[in-house]
Amino acid sequence: MSNPLQPGAVIGILGGGQLGRMLSMAAARLGFVTHIFEPGANPPAGQVAHRVTTAPYEDAEALAAFAQSVDVITYEFENIPTEALDVLESHRPIRPGREALRVSQDRLTEKTFLQGLGLNTAPFADVTDLDSLQAAIERIGTPAILKTRRFGYDGKGQARLKSPEDAQAALADMQRAPAILEGFVNFSHEVSIIAARGLDGQVACFDPGENVHRDGILHTTTVPARLSPALRTDAVLLAANILNALDYVGVMGVELFVTPQGLIVNEIAPRVHNSGHWTQNGCAVDQFEQHIRALAGWPLGDGQRHADVVMENLIGDDMDRVPELAQQRDVALHLYGKAEVKPGRKMGHFNRIKR
Amino acid sequence: MSNPLQPGAVIGILGGGQLGRMLSMAAARLGFVTHIFEPGANPPAGQVAHRVTTAPYEDAEALAAFAQSVDVITYEFENIPTEALDVLESHRPIRPGREALRVSQDRLTEKTFLQGLGLNTAPFADVTDLDSLQAAIERIGTPAILKTRRFGYDGKGQARLKSPEDAQAALADMQRAPAILEGFVNFSHEVSIIAARGLDGQVACFDPGENVHRDGILHTTTVPARLSPALRTDAVLLAANILNALDYVGVMGVELFVTPQGLIVNEIAPRVHNSGHWTQNGCAVDQFEQHIRALAGWPLGDGQRHADVVMENLIGDDMDRVPELAQQRDVALHLYGKAEVKPGRKMGHFNRIKR
Repeated sequence: MSNPLQPGAVIGILGGGQLGRMLSMAAARLGFVTHIFEPGANPPAGQVAHRVTTAPYEDAEALAAFAQSVDVITYEFENIPTEALDVLESHRPIRPGREALRVSQDRLTEKTFLQGLGLNTAPFADVTDLDSLQAAIERIGTPAILKTRRFGYDGKGQARLKSPEDAQAALADMQRAPAILEGFVNFSHEVSIIAARGLDGQVACFDPGENVHRDGILHTTTVPARLSPALRTDAVLLAANILNALDYVGVMGVELFVTPQGLIVNEIAPRVHNSGHWTQNGCAVDQFEQHIRALAGWPLGDGQRHADVVMENLIGDDMDRVPELAQQRDVALHLYGKAEVKPGRKMGHFNRIKR
Repeated sequence: MSNPLQPGAVIGILGGGQLGRMLSMAAARLGFVTHIFEPGANPPAGQVAHRVTTAPYEDAEALAAFAQSVDVITYEFENIPTEALDVLESHRPIRPGREALRVSQDRLTEKTFLQGLGLNTAPFADVTDLDSLQAAIERIGTPAILKTRRFGYDGKGQARLKSPEDAQAALADMQRAPAILEGFVNFSHEVSIIAARGLDGQVACFDPGENVHRDGILHTTTVPARLSPALRTDAVLLAANILNALDYVGVMGVELFVTPQGLIVNEIAPRVHNSGHWTQNGCAVDQFEQHIRALAGWPLGDGQRHADVVMENLIGDDMDRVPELAQQRDVALHLYGKAEVKPGRKMGHFNRIKR
């Protein structure tokens, strides 16, 4: 181990949502303390973190004080303003590093990067106005999907084009934000692979999970995924390819479409990922601890599972199911401590362990 | 469920050590927030709790404010001053209840209670002075062990008598504290059963674990324990017997000696127990969540394990083993965030999952 952090070290986490919360609990299991930076009041992660700084990402003074109070900085979301990163990085290392953020913050940059590695993606084209959109439709065809290049998540900032006639309306949905047009991929199902790379370059992958979405939000992840041994190997190799190319440190979620022609990379997330929550009850070292281990310079867990698991998200009113779920055998609940239930809001998840 | 606590409710925990810490994390998984009451500075539980009150148990005002800020009160240790409990209970329910504390705070009361239930214990006698000690030795014989009635843990407050001649020295060790003499039990091994009883009277037991001690401190717990099916049933029945007699709510640790004549109850602890830490990696609902579920009026987890586990404590310098342990497959580390390593101090534990 190269300069591993010792128990007692402080890990700074940008973002106080459920991912920051579960990262905090994993860090605590290794004897680390956490400090959350979050603009919003009463962040879920604050309930389990040692310290919380409440300040906007534009507050350079608060960012500097935060950075100086920690040993290393990580994040639960990728859309951190560049200026904030500049301030933070002048004080402490940010892991995963800036290159991973630069690439994943922009769908065009990300897809270009992936193709540059020789990986398959959906066909795509840069869209800045109606002319470039029409040219893109001509090349890619319809149906297709127009997405903002930045700040999209859980299906937000997206518009479907059933036919070329939908071009103008879809463009209006983007509200002048730079966008890309993506061709539809004819896939049988989606899997994701949660991969990690340590400070020493070691790579470890969890078993791929099979994802089902509802209304653009992840609904379930099932492990093991339906995936041939050959494709399983492909998934691990391409994930390692991506992590090595970025000199990555930490956990990354890689979403893949399974097609008759092989795997197509849908998107990457330079952080712990909703489709990796199953590891909390399937592995000795879960994705949250794996991420903390990586950025702390610790050896990685090997990623092998000791149980099959189905993870299911609890969105909005799904919280009404909690009393019933609590009675079910082999169900492990993970609730996020969010005060208000809202439609589409991720309130928790549960892992059903299969025997 | 009778008036179950809803996510967002506040659970007050007396004691900020590792048990309070792991209770806090389990409470968070169910969406509860925790408030720790602890006289000492920088308690390990404070790193993962929403709130900490630092005050002595003699501070009635601080106790009242603490109680009023929470929905229910529990504890990580049994030696809470009676006066403090009086203050707390006037504001909020304490679970497990006062009767369990009264019984388990005093070895004489506890053994008398257990015998009253028809359970087997080591032979014992009340010791107040040299006369009563000599009478006790005459009845029980030597070797025997003299223990303070109150405030003993991890082998503290105990003196062994190899022969009647050791009486005076052993008594001096007690420093005039009321004591009991216990006869030695000829047992093959020790097991413990972690049992839980819900607000509705439902009882659930985890699989018994087999304990090995070193220097009077728990060293390992192995699950499954060596125990015949008949004794396994005995263990569950006697635990249920104890919990029902106390109208108990929460998790209890029951230590048992295995002898050719059957099970002998060594001691009970009205709280989560070191010998139940294996459940963190062997069960969908671990002992910490089970305790929180019980006092929150939620249904209990069923206690069945999905994996065999060996738990091992990390005491004092055992922390030096962490880098090596972190490299081992199927090892789950649980460190306590204690700043200072001291000989005999519990710094963490790890669970080795068996495939």
